[in-house]
Amino acid sequence: MNRIDYIKEINGWEDEFQFYYRVKVRFSDTDMFRHLNNTVPFSYFEEARIEYFKSLGFMQDWVKPDSKTIPVVANLQCDFLKQVYYDEKLKIYVKAESVGNSSADLHYMGKREDGDICFVGRGTIVQISSRTGKGVPWTDEMRKLFMEQKAIRA
Amino acid sequence: MNRIDYIKEINGWEDEFQFYYRVKVRFSDTDMFRHLNNTVPFSYFEEARIEYFKSLGFMQDWVKPDSKTIPVVANLQCDFLKQVYYDEKLKIYVKAESVGNSSADLHYMGKREDGDICFVGRGTIVQISSRTGKGVPWTDEMRKLFMEQKAIRA
Amino acid sequence: MNRIDYIKEINGWEDEFQFYYRVKVRFSDTDMFRHLNNTVPFSYFEEARIEYFKSLGFMQDWVKPDSKTIPVVANLQCDFLKQVYYDEKLKIYVKAESVGNSSADLHYMGKREDGDICFVGRGTIVQISSRTGKGVPWTDEMRKLFMEQKAIRA
Amino acid sequence: MNRIDYIKEINGWEDEFQFYYRVKVRFSDTDMFRHLNNTVPFSYFEEARIEYFKSLGFMQDWVKPDSKTIPVVANLQCDFLKQVYYDEKLKIYVKAESVGNSSADLHYMGKREDGDICFVGRGTIVQISSRTGKGVPWTDEMRKLFMEQKAIRA
Repeated sequence: MNRIDYIKEINGWEDEFQFYYRVKVRFSDTDMFRHLNNTVPFSYFEEARIEYFKSLGFMQDWVKPDSKTIPVVANLQCDFLKQVYYDEKLKIYVKAESVGNSSADLHYMGKREDGDICFVGRGTIVQISSRTGKGVPWTDEMRKLFMEQKAIRA
Repeated sequence: MNRIDYIKEINGWEDEFQFYYRVKVRFSDTDMFRHLNNTVPFSYFEEARIEYFKSLGFMQDWVKPDSKTIPVVANLQCDFLKQVYYDEKLKIYVKAESVGNSSADLHYMGKREDGDICFVGRGTIVQISSRTGKGVPWTDEMRKLFMEQKAIRA
Repeated sequence: MNRIDYIKEINGWEDEFQFYYRVKVRFSDTDMFRHLNNTVPFSYFEEARIEYFKSLGFMQDWVKPDSKTIPVVANLQCDFLKQVYYDEKLKIYVKAESVGNSSADLHYMGKREDGDICFVGRGTIVQISSRTGKGVPWTDEMRKLFMEQKAIRA
Repeated sequence: MNRIDYIKEINGWEDEFQFYYRVKVRFSDTDMFRHLNNTVPFSYFEEARIEYFKSLGFMQDWVKPDSKTIPVVANLQCDFLKQVYYDEKLKIYVKAESVGNSSADLHYMGKREDGDICFVGRGTIVQISSRTGKGVPWTDEMRKLFMEQKAIRA
């Protein structure tokens, strides 16, 4: 796994994850090659990311119909390490690797119950104005919540 | 096909369709049984229904962020007559079988290029208030547009 | 709900359900009308049906690559009673209403945690030969398992 | 766009694309933030990649039930440059940036009809044995087909 350039050192990287969200591979998540379709881990990342943001207290405001800001995904990538099959139970881990002005670099890890890492990924999320589409800086409160979570890990 | 209770007489029923929308079975529409997953025809119905409403001029208002009304599906059913496979090209036909006060009974037919009927279906659509969730009667203009399309067929 | 023709009497019908499967409405299950997209309950039905068949011990053989039989859905319908929103937790109930030679009539009910019924449905499932596509009768063992489950309810 | 590290120089990179596949944003491709859900471009990439492989003559063998090899996605990434909305018509371009022993680095570009680039991406595809899961080298014929397409561009 040393060719994945966003992971400097796999052991330390893996240890830093705290938050995870459980998913089960649905029948409709498979394709005619009999394994998990490669587009599906991105929706697992999405679910896990949203639960992660809920745990920080951010999501609750973003989904209000009149919310002035929404989170958008600026980029997203996934490395598929093992084939995954129907009915497998996975833990999808999320962590904020770094936090910018209005953005954050989130990292992801999909793990089998036996500890096998099936896929890893990362992506930049940006808080934008739902009206103008421009980036909106994190509040001090939000930044503090991101940091506290980092502190717990350290 | 005489056991499908919403189709009285198949030949007349089939002839009444005018509007259709073309779809191609995507790879991700298949499942590990190597055929079209049974949930997918409902999204084909949805696409075809929306294009049908666009052809009537209804959809353009409904998708505006400040639209006072939206269409909702009250019920939906599908009879799967033939197995469908990856990469097949289908025509999805839609017609309004009957029009109520704030609702309409839409019928659907999925057909292969060679004329084979793969699946048929029907469902009630209701125009509701996006604020209260209550039914909102079709305007005279809307009713006229539904009827004109019927007149063309007669 | 008396206009739903596959439900004779709602209270008795509801009481007969035993098996259920829990789902949570994913963010990607919503659409731009901000509610659960109407195609999604059919994939909830699918997941619940598969788990139901696993509980009966049928699914384990069907998903083997060399299985001689597979289950296919002959028809499917859903009545949407309440709008459902992102992040709601639902129980999807399944029961076999009747069992034919190579088919079964399955009924479904989607319920909120507070007991609210959000949608109901039914559909015929048929066991077919994966080679010929023709119906394959249930074995005595399978029939017995269907019946035992009915007996428990009675 | 100079921070996207797999694109050295945008103009030359953009000019090299020849093959494209047309998609239309489906209603069910949107989410409650009213735009294209971020997992969907990956299924557009998949459709476009499959059509690209069909144009090379590879896909026809891979989808046969007894095919000894299948293509798998080793990694995948997408940079979202513009928000995309319901009903937009996009061209999804695909090219092989480089070809390895049993793998290829494919690049993607999603473009509006007016020429606007909405998202770009890349990913490694590997031809593996459907039995062992190990990489299977491209045949000389396959390599020739990849190269010919490159030659056309040069």
